[in-house]
Amino acid sequence: MPSEFDSDTTLEQVGERRYGGHISDRWNAPLGPIGGYVLAVATRALCLESGKPDPLTVTGHFVGRTVPGEVEIEVEPVRRGKRHSTSMATLRQGGEERLRVLGTFADLGAAEGRTLVDNAPPDLPALEECIDPVPLIPEAMAAMVSVAQRFTVRSRPGTPGWLHAGPSGRASQELWLRFVDGREADPLALVLIVDGTPPTVLELGEVGSITVELTVHVRGRPEPGWLRMRKSARHLIDGYFEEDAEVWDSSDRLVAQSRQLAMLVRIG
Amino acid sequence: MPSEFDSDTTLEQVGERRYGGHISDRWNAPLGPIGGYVLAVATRALCLESGKPDPLTVTGHFVGRTVPGEVEIEVEPVRRGKRHSTSMATLRQGGEERLRVLGTFADLGAAEGRTLVDNAPPDLPALEECIDPVPLIPEAMAAMVSVAQRFTVRSRPGTPGWLHAGPSGRASQELWLRFVDGREADPLALVLIVDGTPPTVLELGEVGSITVELTVHVRGRPEPGWLRMRKSARHLIDGYFEEDAEVWDSSDRLVAQSRQLAMLVRIG
Repeated sequence: MPSEFDSDTTLEQVGERRYGGHISDRWNAPLGPIGGYVLAVATRALCLESGKPDPLTVTGHFVGRTVPGEVEIEVEPVRRGKRHSTSMATLRQGGEERLRVLGTFADLGAAEGRTLVDNAPPDLPALEECIDPVPLIPEAMAAMVSVAQRFTVRSRPGTPGWLHAGPSGRASQELWLRFVDGREADPLALVLIVDGTPPTVLELGEVGSITVELTVHVRGRPEPGWLRMRKSARHLIDGYFEEDAEVWDSSDRLVAQSRQLAMLVRIG
Repeated sequence: MPSEFDSDTTLEQVGERRYGGHISDRWNAPLGPIGGYVLAVATRALCLESGKPDPLTVTGHFVGRTVPGEVEIEVEPVRRGKRHSTSMATLRQGGEERLRVLGTFADLGAAEGRTLVDNAPPDLPALEECIDPVPLIPEAMAAMVSVAQRFTVRSRPGTPGWLHAGPSGRASQELWLRFVDGREADPLALVLIVDGTPPTVLELGEVGSITVELTVHVRGRPEPGWLRMRKSARHLIDGYFEEDAEVWDSSDRLVAQSRQLAMLVRIG
């Protein structure tokens, strides 16, 4: 059986550089499918056309609200070089554009050069000392957040604050995570995973966020096993904030970095 | 007289959503015009077509090497919403694509919402206690780096390391800066400014970098006066690294953030 992720990002070619897909309702936050999921669907179409195996840097501009249901994706090749291949994708629903994507692909297995990392994976307690925060999500919210059922998550006891004592006042998050069905992460899945956990602004007492733009850099092919996520939002200005994410693999290597520009959800 | 920046980003409309411009040799690093300059030229074309005053988030994928000389830019509108307007630009030289850009524009003056910043401007000594590092650039390099003449820069005494005792071993940078001709920064100029100082990997003993992708978030309209820049590159992996920049204005507000994915220049 294909994994949830593979099943929910399956595409069928419907024309020259045109693909049809189905946005599932299994990756929903309260306002609809999370941006990273929709971006991963479009990125799969880019993968099929790029001639290089790995998304290296992918940017999506979310220009309309995607809802569960059919989508059509059209790919335009931009340039195919020796080392990098760049393409653009347009994702539409009912003829209306929802997402525009630019992606540059590479063969991460062939990347050669110096490595020097001035950072470390999240310093989380061992898995067995961590807790599962998902059952703490209030029932009314859980019903709207199907994406929470797609991951197995472990967090430091007492965190996240918004599910325990209350919002911590700092928009940051550190977690163990992996797909609930055991599917291992790969570069395409990382495009979703960076956006797969709740927005850190919940720690500021906010109720949610809307992604305007999301850029994902895949920095390596992840080893099998648990991932560790570090997220933060340091500059909330006039209702806009950037949210940065890092994903580290089981061999302590950074495998993805992302930054999104998002807006707070306003109520009323 | 127009400023250097305005003069070197001037565009002439040559057709429907088509513009001609001239890439000046005044913004060169050793391998040619810096990416932020070429991105600013393309972003000016997007500004002219977007119907919103301010670039909010702009991403460029550098698919070929731009050289000083004529360029042609074509703009494709993606979506014009009430709050945001998204467009795409293609920049070509001699018919060959060099840069593909996606940009979402907004009216930053109309942005309303909560502000909470968990960061501070670079803690630099007062301007008069800082030094001008530009005269320290070796003559052979200075001849190839015309962009160094476009800014007035002040750095902490003894920094940057690569122009003093030697590369510090940490890819970070903090500077005062402004345009040398006194032109004040605005949202469009910030698209260039984030990329206007030397790559931080010079502090690792490297000789240079090539931008693969550059994303700029403009977070506010800068007040007149000196800017402060903070840059760092924390994850150099297999020759690729991300370089993050923050620009703070004279009223201590973050006005731009950027991240680029870049490659080390290999010699020989």
